[in-house]
Amino acid sequence: MTSQFLSELARMLGSAVLTGDAVSDKHRTDMSLSGTELPLAVIRPRTTEEVSAALRVCHAHGIGVVPQGGLTGLAGGANPGADQVVISFELMRGIEEIDKASATMTVKAGTPLEVAQQAAAGAGLFLGLDLGARGSYQIGGNLATNAGGIRVIRYGMAREQVLGLEAVLADGTVVSSMNKMLKNNAGYDLKHLFIGSEGTLGIITRAVLRLHPPPGNINTALCALSSYEDVVKLLRDAQATIGNIAAFEALWRDYHVYSSSALKFRFFENPYPFWVIIESANDMETFLGGALESGLITDCIIATSEIQARDMWSVREGHAIDALPNLINFDVSLPIAGIGAFAEACTNALKTRWPAAHVFCFGHIGDSNLHVSVSTHFGAAEDMHDVDDIVYGTLRPFNGSISAEHGIGVMKRPYLAQSRSPAELALMRTLKRALDPKGILNPGKVI
Amino acid sequence: MTSQFLSELARMLGSAVLTGDAVSDKHRTDMSLSGTELPLAVIRPRTTEEVSAALRVCHAHGIGVVPQGGLTGLAGGANPGADQVVISFELMRGIEEIDKASATMTVKAGTPLEVAQQAAAGAGLFLGLDLGARGSYQIGGNLATNAGGIRVIRYGMAREQVLGLEAVLADGTVVSSMNKMLKNNAGYDLKHLFIGSEGTLGIITRAVLRLHPPPGNINTALCALSSYEDVVKLLRDAQATIGNIAAFEALWRDYHVYSSSALKFRFFENPYPFWVIIESANDMETFLGGALESGLITDCIIATSEIQARDMWSVREGHAIDALPNLINFDVSLPIAGIGAFAEACTNALKTRWPAAHVFCFGHIGDSNLHVSVSTHFGAAEDMHDVDDIVYGTLRPFNGSISAEHGIGVMKRPYLAQSRSPAELALMRTLKRALDPKGILNPGKVI
Repeated sequence: MTSQFLSELARMLGSAVLTGDAVSDKHRTDMSLSGTELPLAVIRPRTTEEVSAALRVCHAHGIGVVPQGGLTGLAGGANPGADQVVISFELMRGIEEIDKASATMTVKAGTPLEVAQQAAAGAGLFLGLDLGARGSYQIGGNLATNAGGIRVIRYGMAREQVLGLEAVLADGTVVSSMNKMLKNNAGYDLKHLFIGSEGTLGIITRAVLRLHPPPGNINTALCALSSYEDVVKLLRDAQATIGNIAAFEALWRDYHVYSSSALKFRFFENPYPFWVIIESANDMETFLGGALESGLITDCIIATSEIQARDMWSVREGHAIDALPNLINFDVSLPIAGIGAFAEACTNALKTRWPAAHVFCFGHIGDSNLHVSVSTHFGAAEDMHDVDDIVYGTLRPFNGSISAEHGIGVMKRPYLAQSRSPAELALMRTLKRALDPKGILNPGKVI
Repeated sequence: MTSQFLSELARMLGSAVLTGDAVSDKHRTDMSLSGTELPLAVIRPRTTEEVSAALRVCHAHGIGVVPQGGLTGLAGGANPGADQVVISFELMRGIEEIDKASATMTVKAGTPLEVAQQAAAGAGLFLGLDLGARGSYQIGGNLATNAGGIRVIRYGMAREQVLGLEAVLADGTVVSSMNKMLKNNAGYDLKHLFIGSEGTLGIITRAVLRLHPPPGNINTALCALSSYEDVVKLLRDAQATIGNIAAFEALWRDYHVYSSSALKFRFFENPYPFWVIIESANDMETFLGGALESGLITDCIIATSEIQARDMWSVREGHAIDALPNLINFDVSLPIAGIGAFAEACTNALKTRWPAAHVFCFGHIGDSNLHVSVSTHFGAAEDMHDVDDIVYGTLRPFNGSISAEHGIGVMKRPYLAQSRSPAELALMRTLKRALDPKGILNPGKVI
């Protein structure tokens, strides 16, 4: 049965199919390191036609297919099972076209984000997508998870950068909607089915991305504030007054103290309760002077060099925190007004249970996205599960989402029902059944 | 059979149901004036629960349901059949909440656009949606068609203003996804099913809209150019240099000459081939001075008063053109680089057939959206059909869309297959069958 499937696959796809020892260990898991199994085979297509052929064979045999991009996911969405095959996009890469007049770029799914960014810059344009893992992160995986990254406040989510999309359905049908127009209302906008559904409704093969004018020189400032309400006011005032806000990152005190101590940086004398990094291509001096005078911010430094701006960002990146034992990283979103109260309630609940725990809060506040990093200094699996329960339990009354940008994958699936109603889940299942009746597309992920 | 249905409807919904003489003539048609029939009944719900109850009854009896908003559509999408019922949102209106910290507004589907705009402004914020018909246009209808209007270049399509959405499915199930967060990747993003599907997959009842900081004072300029290539270069240079472009509207010579003559305006001595209105909150003088010097633009006026800016816009609005006999208005989109060649080819093809025809081209070039208004001075139905065939036939090799923002409705359905592939149409039908197996939602529209 399996051998018949594999020989048919080899007949259709030749050297694009790897089996046995040729399947490298990296295909077991994404960056969550939660995957353990090697797939039956790894298919490395170079064209949409090869993806289509692979799906036709898998569909005929009812074999599950797990798409893999740069394997930078954090939710186990790209982990295969031992009875499934992987379609890896590592060989299906490259920019097909940059259309300067339309300000669009046509790319293959396996193109690393950084390659696309550089190609846009080479054409005097700018791709509004960026994430830390830009070197290995692939466009197809980025769109399949709709991960936002650090430029959402300025350019919107990954979804909003997509004008056209090509995807292959479970049975191998190629749905090519390579639209280049900002406005196109001719029938249903099918691309949104595939963006953010983590490969469970179709497999993305190519995309037309919207490009923007280059943002120009960026100014960076670090502000200290005394309350979360002031952080929100600073955000709204900055958006209204400075304009073109390119980043607005908030750090809670413990995060700032721990991270800057580890780096031996000391920007101010006092350990203020809140810290904000603002970036904009516009001048910020007049605005921040006024904010200091009115007491909205209690202290402020505008970076006078790239090195100083980088130092501010290295406190935000917090590699010392990443190195803590048994760290659990949460990626929640909730209405901006509620983030302060949630962070406080969540910290209190965790410290009541584990008084010595580290709880670090930080996030893209302008995007309603909070990250919480928790280190309990214990390692037992039941503890990690309890941390999940406390964080997601605290989130419930805030009408928050358990995943702002990392996706659901397998790891957050047990909590999905908390963020989505029974009617929403039923509709997701209706879509899944309609598009993938045999359940072969990334089985066991999302729903 | 019908009387049993109507009495059940009346029992469930009481005075919300109008039948017989109580059904006013306005429910026959949208602004295309292509609808002729009165529906069986008009249901005017005030709550989501009433919409749900209405759909449950209609679903049980297999009766078609046509949602009606402000009836400003141009494609017949809101026209009922004599054996169908209308759900009119005229009584289900109002702002439920403005959350200033989250910069969101929660509105009922029947809220007129202008009411929502004013409420946002009252809270010191700004709704990034605007259209000429703002007084009667309803939010629900706007989202059902995803119509863009005049602020797309700055804020994106209607879809991009929506953070949360509530819709009622064919069987009355309420799917409430009233998300307020910019980032939320917890499972499939269901709202995109309902936005732009013209009521054929579900009926929108409420929405959470994203608000923006107010744009500040707007500068307006009118530029003359000698080629379409220069128009595109001006767009890209203006976006990169001025920034925050709030409008970029191009008028082809014949449009400008006809409209400004009718208004007795004369901005410049020469009838230049292309005219562009640019708006931005930023200063445009230095940039436009440079563009004049380099020869990119051949003439330019920056409005020095609101009256002068309004005069420029009244040429663009072109009421004299609207008054021409048997006018047919097209709303196509195509890659920005191709718009110039398409406009020329389309004009030539029409004038070859009807040498005395008026063909006026203008559009939101920055959004890849061209409008073509054609008056052949003949009135026969076969002529009007021939105009459709020539315009859409000329569009085909340009990979354009037959509808940029007006939707498909009934009037453009015969041409949908030109803009979408068989695989796309099949997937649309799969979605339609999955969400509306009895085919009761806005029957005969879109697909």
